[in-house]
Amino acid sequence: MPDDVPQQSAFDAATAVHPGADGVATAVLDPGWDVGGGVLNGGYLLSVAARAALLASPHPHPVALSASYLRAAAAGPATLTATPGPAGRTLAHTAVLLADATGPALSVQVTTATLGADAPEVALPVPAGVTPVEGCLSIAGHAHLAPPGVTVPGLTRQVETRLDPLTAGWVLGTPGEEPVLRAWVRFADEREPDPLALVTFADALPPTSWALGRFGWAPTVQLQVLVRALPAPGWCLVEARAGEIAGGWLDEDYRIWDSTGRLVAQSRQLARAPRG
Amino acid sequence: MPDDVPQQSAFDAATAVHPGADGVATAVLDPGWDVGGGVLNGGYLLSVAARAALLASPHPHPVALSASYLRAAAAGPATLTATPGPAGRTLAHTAVLLADATGPALSVQVTTATLGADAPEVALPVPAGVTPVEGCLSIAGHAHLAPPGVTVPGLTRQVETRLDPLTAGWVLGTPGEEPVLRAWVRFADEREPDPLALVTFADALPPTSWALGRFGWAPTVQLQVLVRALPAPGWCLVEARAGEIAGGWLDEDYRIWDSTGRLVAQSRQLARAPRG
Repeated sequence: MPDDVPQQSAFDAATAVHPGADGVATAVLDPGWDVGGGVLNGGYLLSVAARAALLASPHPHPVALSASYLRAAAAGPATLTATPGPAGRTLAHTAVLLADATGPALSVQVTTATLGADAPEVALPVPAGVTPVEGCLSIAGHAHLAPPGVTVPGLTRQVETRLDPLTAGWVLGTPGEEPVLRAWVRFADEREPDPLALVTFADALPPTSWALGRFGWAPTVQLQVLVRALPAPGWCLVEARAGEIAGGWLDEDYRIWDSTGRLVAQSRQLARAPRG
Repeated sequence: MPDDVPQQSAFDAATAVHPGADGVATAVLDPGWDVGGGVLNGGYLLSVAARAALLASPHPHPVALSASYLRAAAAGPATLTATPGPAGRTLAHTAVLLADATGPALSVQVTTATLGADAPEVALPVPAGVTPVEGCLSIAGHAHLAPPGVTVPGLTRQVETRLDPLTAGWVLGTPGEEPVLRAWVRFADEREPDPLALVTFADALPPTSWALGRFGWAPTVQLQVLVRALPAPGWCLVEARAGEIAGGWLDEDYRIWDSTGRLVAQSRQLARAPRG
């Protein structure tokens, strides 16, 4: 391919949606964005749904997305039915239902708007003491250290994830006492971040319970993502924290800063807690 | 009324829903739960929607709710159309659309489950240094100090709200520098808290920007509430914090603890920021 024809990034290819009749778009869900066992990552699926919402919206950026994960979506052909709601100069609402060959898998409410270059009046700073990216641990590079029974997910090959060693004791067999994970992330092909990328990054880390040495899959039940600003190029810093693990439930609270230290996204999800 | 006939609480009366045909329930939205200017409180509306979801669910408790506020709902008759989704032994999904006489106002995804008496394995503790309820400021008792142009909302008469003086400088004309509000809350008629009450409490404080002396209404765009446990009787402690105020947008992040200090609910909303 000649140098002057930009190649589509893996993320853009894997989240592409194609407009269809009556507000029903189509996509092909990519098996390469799984979290193990063929289960597609929830943030990846939400980015696909966000693209379908943008097709139906007068605004270019998803700023709030709330998704109910009805069941695991299978890789392969999918339909995305977008139902526009009220739309105005400031924001627009759209509902999106993602269905695979078996039926509905993900129901999403998307608010779109137009993000600008406004400096924040108030913004949470980057946590103190974060390890610079060059001092962090590559998850992909430590795949041979994966906990027993945990397959290395495709997601970690798509999203380069560098764990802050301060929250990565579990990788080396010495789990910590706080359900917190912190990592620098970017796409492996160095596609720069944008609001759609932040939607994937907002669910891209392993379950925070892994920090405690409790491994296993933590299926997302409901996920809300807020995109607060257009991210600058470069690595994003992601911090995920569980506020409570109880009765088989776990929440995960994400904050994402861009390479300039600006808070650019937040998310919270309710998930089922891994056993054990 | 004889002593042995319990009177229905104001909250239970104001959030009552009546089953109808084809999954369409009815309610009468109570003008007494406004946040000023006749605008009904978002948490109150979400509790009404939660009741409609429970009618359609095999489980008794809302554990995750995500709502898009399409436009302000008017007091008076409303319909609630519940569409059941997948339901199992652990959880069930239901979509609820609340419409007033004009049309759809609130679109909600509700996950229901059965909360038990599980002790948490991990839970965020009550913040250090919280002022005991007897040392806090009653919002209703300071109504005469309401900022210029701010009408005293009905909500403050329904939900007794005692502001921690450490975050209440704005009440006395000396705003702080952090967008944080903390208060003890309970229903004015002392109805005890339950999951439905927590849904209202998760949006019951004034906008956190008031802590900075920026008064005005901050309309909710999207709100997610997680209910994590059955709350013990008594006052609940609510802390609300904005992570970022930028470009006309504001997030509000709530944590709610019950009278035993157990984290019982969390919420996050994206709202429009009051103009400076």
